Amino acid sequence: MLNILFAARPARWPDYEEPLRTALSNAGIEADLATDITPGEVDYIVYAPNSWLQDFAPYTRCKAVLSLWAGVEGIVGNTTLTLPLARMVDHGLTQGMVEWVVGHTLRHHLGMDLHIHGQDGIWRDYAPPLARDRKVSVLGLGALGAACAEALRGLGFDVTGWSRSPKDVPGIRCLHGEEGLKEALTGAEGLVLLLPATPATDNVINAERLALVAPGAFVINPGRGPLIDDAALLGALDTGQIGHATLDVFRQEPLPKDHLYWAHPNVTVTPHIASETRPVTASEVIVENIRRGEAGEPFLHLVDRAQGY
Amino acid sequence: MLNILFAARPARWPDYEEPLRTALSNAGIEADLATDITPGEVDYIVYAPNSWLQDFAPYTRCKAVLSLWAGVEGIVGNTTLTLPLARMVDHGLTQGMVEWVVGHTLRHHLGMDLHIHGQDGIWRDYAPPLARDRKVSVLGLGALGAACAEALRGLGFDVTGWSRSPKDVPGIRCLHGEEGLKEALTGAEGLVLLLPATPATDNVINAERLALVAPGAFVINPGRGPLIDDAALLGALDTGQIGHATLDVFRQEPLPKDHLYWAHPNVTVTPHIASETRPVTASEVIVENIRRGEAGEPFLHLVDRAQGY
Repeated sequence: MLNILFAARPARWPDYEEPLRTALSNAGIEADLATDITPGEVDYIVYAPNSWLQDFAPYTRCKAVLSLWAGVEGIVGNTTLTLPLARMVDHGLTQGMVEWVVGHTLRHHLGMDLHIHGQDGIWRDYAPPLARDRKVSVLGLGALGAACAEALRGLGFDVTGWSRSPKDVPGIRCLHGEEGLKEALTGAEGLVLLLPATPATDNVINAERLALVAPGAFVINPGRGPLIDDAALLGALDTGQIGHATLDVFRQEPLPKDHLYWAHPNVTVTPHIASETRPVTASEVIVENIRRGEAGEPFLHLVDRAQGY
Repeated sequence: MLNILFAARPARWPDYEEPLRTALSNAGIEADLATDITPGEVDYIVYAPNSWLQDFAPYTRCKAVLSLWAGVEGIVGNTTLTLPLARMVDHGLTQGMVEWVVGHTLRHHLGMDLHIHGQDGIWRDYAPPLARDRKVSVLGLGALGAACAEALRGLGFDVTGWSRSPKDVPGIRCLHGEEGLKEALTGAEGLVLLLPATPATDNVINAERLALVAPGAFVINPGRGPLIDDAALLGALDTGQIGHATLDVFRQEPLPKDHLYWAHPNVTVTPHIASETRPVTASEVIVENIRRGEAGEPFLHLVDRAQGY
């Protein structure tokens, strides 16, 4: 009998209890799953980085911390955590992200807002170019970035991908490193930010780099708030160098009511909904890792703490 | 030396002259391409149904009328036209249609308008379901409908296709006939209309059929205006049975300034831009048909005048 601690905000427990119990039962794992277990008796921690649990020292028997979140920057620097830490790589999360990114990219590509806002009887007979004549760069080629790049490519967009270290995504022109970043940005009509938040990516989108994209380009950030130098982006929006920014993530969430992003006419704020972990599919990923732990097999999606993701 | 008449609105000539000459030259066809040729000397007519040319009787030597438009209902009933008539099936047009349909479907699926209109500082933490849990029915499975159904399926939507006569589109549940239409509509959360305009499809979307879809469903019409019983749609929008309609085509275009669609808060009018023929790709289709005519090969995309498309 395993003891599995669910450590996330209490509001998440009703969403996850049933899917986790079902997945455990389907895997033939007998477990006591609860939100409160004596630390020294816990075998696995199902974890959200915004939970009450921040001191891992008392969890002496625990074999792994299994994150419900894809982004682990909130926990990776916690010095009390020396256990194996696995990120969430959830098919449902990836799929939701693809839908959000493709939808907002098409919104900008098609100039949809002109019609959404312009229901005034004027027949504005403008057809956009085809996607194949539209250069979109996806920064970050992890599970999410690669899936978004492939979906955009599938719709015909002229997609370039960029990552810090060399990656290869079939059908996508992949660049890397500092020179590659310059090339990916130069002339891009759309930017999709799906890099992890690490010291190396802090403010990666700064004034100098925003000056490289095509005038009027759109920026879509469903990745992490700190990727963007907010003052630089607001400046580029004011000059029109950036035509529109759709931002789902911020340095502070919820985004404060008086933040300039809310009021800017060329910014769309969405409340960190680009994608969320889906309890049913996520529970299957969590339980697969518990099964692996018990069978002595390597865990999936382990975080490399030196790289921060 | 062939004589090829370009019969469309004068504004289109500058868009098409160069692409047509290039395509003719690439095909090794020597031709006099002009907007004014003595009728009895014309070999082929490159044609837009809204052109000045409506009496085909004097074109005694002409071998075919090659439409620049996909929709030919404006010409198919012209009794002076007894020549072979080819529709435009343009890769660029299909691609543009896919982009518009996928974009507007994702807009409704993601609930994008909530955020586009709601930039008021309120963090509305609602994530939509995944596309795989969203039933979308595409009515019409010609080149455009099939391509849109496949693209929506590729993004994960639960897609059903319907056509008057049986069709088979790989990966899509295809229904046909009156009973099939009822099944395709029942419970659909989104409808995409890509049927041709024929007497059989006039008012196909009426009050009775709108009552079958899921409450709050969206309707997207990039097909033809007469597919919709406008009074019935406005009624269903008023009760909320239809949550939103995005309409690109109308019985009268431009849509009159005082039409109720412009003023309805849950209607987005777009000015017949869902897709347009692209001069470069369309010219290649036109010239391929001229090559076939000269080589004695069958024309591509011939209109079946009994069916009306």
